[in-house]
Amino acid sequence: MALDSSKTTGFKYVGTRPNRPDGLDKVTGRAKFGADAYAPGMLHAAIKRSPHAHARIIKIDTSKALAMEGVKAVVTRADFATGLEGEFGDILENVMAGEKALYDGHAVAAVAATSALIARDAIKAIEVDYEILPHVTDVDAAMQAGAPVIRAGAADASVPEGLHPNVVRYYESGHGDVEAGFAEADLVVEDHFVTEATHQGYIEPHACLGTLGSDGKGELWCCTQGHWYVQKVCAACLGLETSQLRVTASEIGGGFGGKTTVFIEPVALALSRKANRPVKLVMTRSEVFRASGPTSSTSMDVKIGMKKDGTITAAQGTFRLQGGAFPGAPCEMTAMCAFAPYDLKHVHQVGYDVMSNRPKQAAYRAPGSPMAAFAVESVIDELCGQLGLDPIDTRLKNASREGTRASFGPTWPRIGLVETLEAVKAHPHYVAPLKKGQGRGISCGFWFNHGGETAVSLALSEDGSAQVAVGTPDIGGSRASMALMAAEVLGIPYEDIRVTIADTATLGYNEISHGSRVTYASGLATIKAAEDAVQKLCGRAAAKWGIPEDAVYWEDGYAKPSGPNAGDFEPLHIDEITATMGATGGPICGHFEATPEGAGVSFAAHIVDAEVDPDTGKTSVVRYTVVQDAGKAIHPTYVEGQFQGGAAQGIGWALNEEYIYGADGRLQNAGFLDYRIPVASDLPMIDTVIVEVPNPGHPFGVRGVGETSICPPLAAIANAVSNAVGVRMRQLPMRPSRVLEALESAADG
Amino acid sequence: MALDSSKTTGFKYVGTRPNRPDGLDKVTGRAKFGADAYAPGMLHAAIKRSPHAHARIIKIDTSKALAMEGVKAVVTRADFATGLEGEFGDILENVMAGEKALYDGHAVAAVAATSALIARDAIKAIEVDYEILPHVTDVDAAMQAGAPVIRAGAADASVPEGLHPNVVRYYESGHGDVEAGFAEADLVVEDHFVTEATHQGYIEPHACLGTLGSDGKGELWCCTQGHWYVQKVCAACLGLETSQLRVTASEIGGGFGGKTTVFIEPVALALSRKANRPVKLVMTRSEVFRASGPTSSTSMDVKIGMKKDGTITAAQGTFRLQGGAFPGAPCEMTAMCAFAPYDLKHVHQVGYDVMSNRPKQAAYRAPGSPMAAFAVESVIDELCGQLGLDPIDTRLKNASREGTRASFGPTWPRIGLVETLEAVKAHPHYVAPLKKGQGRGISCGFWFNHGGETAVSLALSEDGSAQVAVGTPDIGGSRASMALMAAEVLGIPYEDIRVTIADTATLGYNEISHGSRVTYASGLATIKAAEDAVQKLCGRAAAKWGIPEDAVYWEDGYAKPSGPNAGDFEPLHIDEITATMGATGGPICGHFEATPEGAGVSFAAHIVDAEVDPDTGKTSVVRYTVVQDAGKAIHPTYVEGQFQGGAAQGIGWALNEEYIYGADGRLQNAGFLDYRIPVASDLPMIDTVIVEVPNPGHPFGVRGVGETSICPPLAAIANAVSNAVGVRMRQLPMRPSRVLEALESAADG
Repeated sequence: MALDSSKTTGFKYVGTRPNRPDGLDKVTGRAKFGADAYAPGMLHAAIKRSPHAHARIIKIDTSKALAMEGVKAVVTRADFATGLEGEFGDILENVMAGEKALYDGHAVAAVAATSALIARDAIKAIEVDYEILPHVTDVDAAMQAGAPVIRAGAADASVPEGLHPNVVRYYESGHGDVEAGFAEADLVVEDHFVTEATHQGYIEPHACLGTLGSDGKGELWCCTQGHWYVQKVCAACLGLETSQLRVTASEIGGGFGGKTTVFIEPVALALSRKANRPVKLVMTRSEVFRASGPTSSTSMDVKIGMKKDGTITAAQGTFRLQGGAFPGAPCEMTAMCAFAPYDLKHVHQVGYDVMSNRPKQAAYRAPGSPMAAFAVESVIDELCGQLGLDPIDTRLKNASREGTRASFGPTWPRIGLVETLEAVKAHPHYVAPLKKGQGRGISCGFWFNHGGETAVSLALSEDGSAQVAVGTPDIGGSRASMALMAAEVLGIPYEDIRVTIADTATLGYNEISHGSRVTYASGLATIKAAEDAVQKLCGRAAAKWGIPEDAVYWEDGYAKPSGPNAGDFEPLHIDEITATMGATGGPICGHFEATPEGAGVSFAAHIVDAEVDPDTGKTSVVRYTVVQDAGKAIHPTYVEGQFQGGAAQGIGWALNEEYIYGADGRLQNAGFLDYRIPVASDLPMIDTVIVEVPNPGHPFGVRGVGETSICPPLAAIANAVSNAVGVRMRQLPMRPSRVLEALESAADG
Repeated sequence: MALDSSKTTGFKYVGTRPNRPDGLDKVTGRAKFGADAYAPGMLHAAIKRSPHAHARIIKIDTSKALAMEGVKAVVTRADFATGLEGEFGDILENVMAGEKALYDGHAVAAVAATSALIARDAIKAIEVDYEILPHVTDVDAAMQAGAPVIRAGAADASVPEGLHPNVVRYYESGHGDVEAGFAEADLVVEDHFVTEATHQGYIEPHACLGTLGSDGKGELWCCTQGHWYVQKVCAACLGLETSQLRVTASEIGGGFGGKTTVFIEPVALALSRKANRPVKLVMTRSEVFRASGPTSSTSMDVKIGMKKDGTITAAQGTFRLQGGAFPGAPCEMTAMCAFAPYDLKHVHQVGYDVMSNRPKQAAYRAPGSPMAAFAVESVIDELCGQLGLDPIDTRLKNASREGTRASFGPTWPRIGLVETLEAVKAHPHYVAPLKKGQGRGISCGFWFNHGGETAVSLALSEDGSAQVAVGTPDIGGSRASMALMAAEVLGIPYEDIRVTIADTATLGYNEISHGSRVTYASGLATIKAAEDAVQKLCGRAAAKWGIPEDAVYWEDGYAKPSGPNAGDFEPLHIDEITATMGATGGPICGHFEATPEGAGVSFAAHIVDAEVDPDTGKTSVVRYTVVQDAGKAIHPTYVEGQFQGGAAQGIGWALNEEYIYGADGRLQNAGFLDYRIPVASDLPMIDTVIVEVPNPGHPFGVRGVGETSICPPLAAIANAVSNAVGVRMRQLPMRPSRVLEALESAADG
């Protein structure tokens, strides 16, 4: 009978908390990360980088480097494909500068040598003549008339006429008449907000081992969130047939969006092709800061009107995102997420993607959304404060729900914001007393969930255990959640399932592990692949029993007969069927390939208590509660981990983290000593509440959870600090000096 | 419409001779073989082996080894699973001795240490107390009353009562009444033949890198012909769920059957589990000879009756195979192959599997068949000589053909022996004049072809190139042949296809690369998987055109419309469909899993001219022609390579190679200096003729070719030498001393 495992209750394995399958490997150091690969005859590479924010490359003299003992190859842009345009053209330009160095740290040449030491010495021997050009690194400055043009002609057709050429993309949406809406309001608050660029802060630097021959065939081992994407980007940059490059994803020591693109892999491959030996390339921490992809810094204006009863009458937002030297800053996402939690009659949002002489921004967990939430939720907090309204009741009053027209257009399906806000209201944290010097902030947050191309294959072993091959690197526990979902369908223990991240040569195309899509899309595909295998298991049982295939059903690991002669046959356990599969038709596998369309969005609300030291301006987060709709938590411990991780990163972003560029256009804090991410002692225990409003587009109701949890913290913490110091904090990070200034202005006020 | 790519003519890619896909990797040293893997923190292992042919293990004291600096783990049999029986029990007993050491070189303990040097020192520090037992290494001696019993109770139910317990399996088949047949003959020849054990002579020693945790999860890299088999054997030996051990096959530096079983992998994994670090284990050449699997030595009696017109009236053979310390010598194969080329009214054959104190025999290219052909084809040559008959005409007169009842039972389907013999007869070599001191020999040979469990997946890239994942290690060019077959079905160039040997975690179960099955079975599965992908490509085109799926057909890389509105649509090239596959339904893949049943047997006939130096007895092969039915040669150059390789190995077996055991039961020539395989200067150019009689059980007509080519050489060369020296050569190898004896006996006679 047609198999459908869909359910939202009655799970046996889903929702339990077994040990993680990669646990022992990771605590014993056996897990192999990007830099842990090795090949006989391997060379080591290093990249020569521009010290200038903006400079024309006049000449590169590699002769002294090439003459050094142990140097086997030097590459410059001439060693890569020509004629690339669009996305791949930009990536190649970022991977290796062509005519101009566009930011401090932009790669201009690379060396492969018999040791890393020789390679690093050799890049010093490469002589580059530059013509230094004027530069700009600030988003507002980059939009001003007279600002240096980063790359002429980079703007696309979305940009209205009359804007500076550094504005390369433009987004606008909304509905209603915001001016009419503001006119209906009892109070209108408009504010300007600024955030700085932050880095994802993954612990593992980018690293790869590449080998490529003159026959156009290559292999690449690398640390990435999406190896099929790396495969096609590298194939384009090197002029290969995509299929001829096999890419394997290593274990990943953090990515958070920052490993969704390509920085070094084509360089290793180009060097390998030239030297005809495998080449390992590992970024230093300084290179990661200078030349991977941080977030956009932003300049934002938000205006919201509210009635005395808390009804929002209109909302308007303008979001300027600094994207570095290439188009791509997520200005649409920022604008779309800004007012998504609210049911608004009049709303309008605008986004600008602005280029500057900085490294190209990259995705960072819900790219663009946390900054929007910071601006919008700060204004709502201000409105509630001035109108004496409860911040949760006010948000509930305006909350998006099923049937609401979203601020950016579509109509919401079943969503869980109301349930999430009600869980906040019911949480003891929300009503706990505060001490002197403490403030409480709350914020909503919204993020999409994405489907994307997905392929999963499942193979059974003769002993009835199962092997699941997925194509999405495990960046947040997906091996555990896939095993749980497969166990649920197959009816065999979690421990009998091994989930492997297949390489590009052995599975269909899989989109990157991004967009909180993995548990949704690879999970759906795993369920469908397991159902496919179950159908075949039932078919084998039917053949053995001599009854129609649709008279067999699957229950708890057994094929069971139905129909008039059901009593004639004993149920067959999976391992009884697999033990003879070779003789009964061959190996039993399940497959599924699709681009699932039923991804469900997710909302969160965070409660934060912050305490400010009046002498130093240092902020301590003293209590933190994350409430979020997971749809269905497949492995609740991992979901809680995602909730906590998003909050922790948000605390860093809100309080300390920022890229600091000098007047010379050079990054001044390219290391973890000067770029301060939170450490354990900076963080409270982060409490979590999992709300489960099933997503009807997934068999078990899964929504993406990984990104939404970083959307509320900037705003929630800013609201808490603002309430603690009595001054609205409109700029991040709220480092001690900035808070001290606020305290002083409050005292002056 | 239902896709069927079957054809035997009109190929575009199949039958061409493109460059091998692994060529550059292999000539530049980049291909990674068994010993080329590396893992951080890796230990190196060494195995302590018995110096005695047969001894009870009284005590193993590992304390001194464990106390050595750098030694991290020692294992003995106590560190493996208990209670294993049958095949896996024997393998474990062979991998690590239990109560008794059964042959010179049998493993008794192993060490993992921080360097290979320390590990080798440490095994010397392990003290083993043995009680030495009487031994036997010769097959006839092992069957005699009073011979030492290798392992009591090892015989299975096939063995008739009254035989020595070392006879562990027995095979008998035939039809008619051989005594009546011999009575009809004009001449009956009966002879006794002896062959010695030979090694496959692969250049790469067994090597692996294993890692296994206390959580029961492991990874294994190893040089093998069948990694799924290694997976289940190792899982059994270590008490794991099969799926929890991921096994990847390295490139293989030769196997020829000798890498179809397991010798060292469980040892590396047991050491890793104990040390909690990855462990590399590489056999020395001496260990390969002493403790991997050579062929059986044999003692054979063959009796054939013939009429004056060349009609064979009856045939009888008795084949005694020495199998080493475990059951498994291919006595059935030897007996079944012996008379397979001939259409016999009266035939009877018997095989004995006899244990001795030698390493367990392993498969070697057509296991058992070359020895049988040596005995049978020598007797036929003798009969032809005595009766003055042409050896080819005589064989043609008696040749098996479609409809013949095979000597071992079944009725032959379409086979190509007659075509093969006719090609021999038509070849200039057959009638070329011989010089003085030269002799010519010819021989038929027969081998089966095997289907076996097979799974293949194929994934398309966005640029329309294809990736084929197969599970059979490429031991003879299968990546090239799979790519050609996929190219034929998909209609895209060979160069756009990458074939990868998938690991056990990412594909369904695949039987070992043995039984000449790969081009047949993985080829069939590749064709079916490609057809599956083509169906989906046609479906995408149909959806785009809005016409029924069965109105679309596939031709030369294009989806084309048919039916009344066909003129409305332009054909769509594969890359136009794949470019948008994400948005039109998701990744496009093809899959196939089955145990194909249509394997077709193959026959060969070889012509050899040998010249004997009367002073030294040294034989030179001066001309050699291989004629063999390939069914369909997918990549003719590889097929010719297989033909030549089989002949070359047969020359070694016939003339020089042999295991020499001393009276002490120890192997005396465990190295390539004393065990002499042919080198280039020992070989003539080996001419080849590919006969193509399509196998109806394969879409393109493929028969297995890899093994049949080693079946005729022993006999053909023996016939050539016998004809050169004027004395029938009944014992191999025909080393100079033995030929000198024959020359002396001829002179005496």
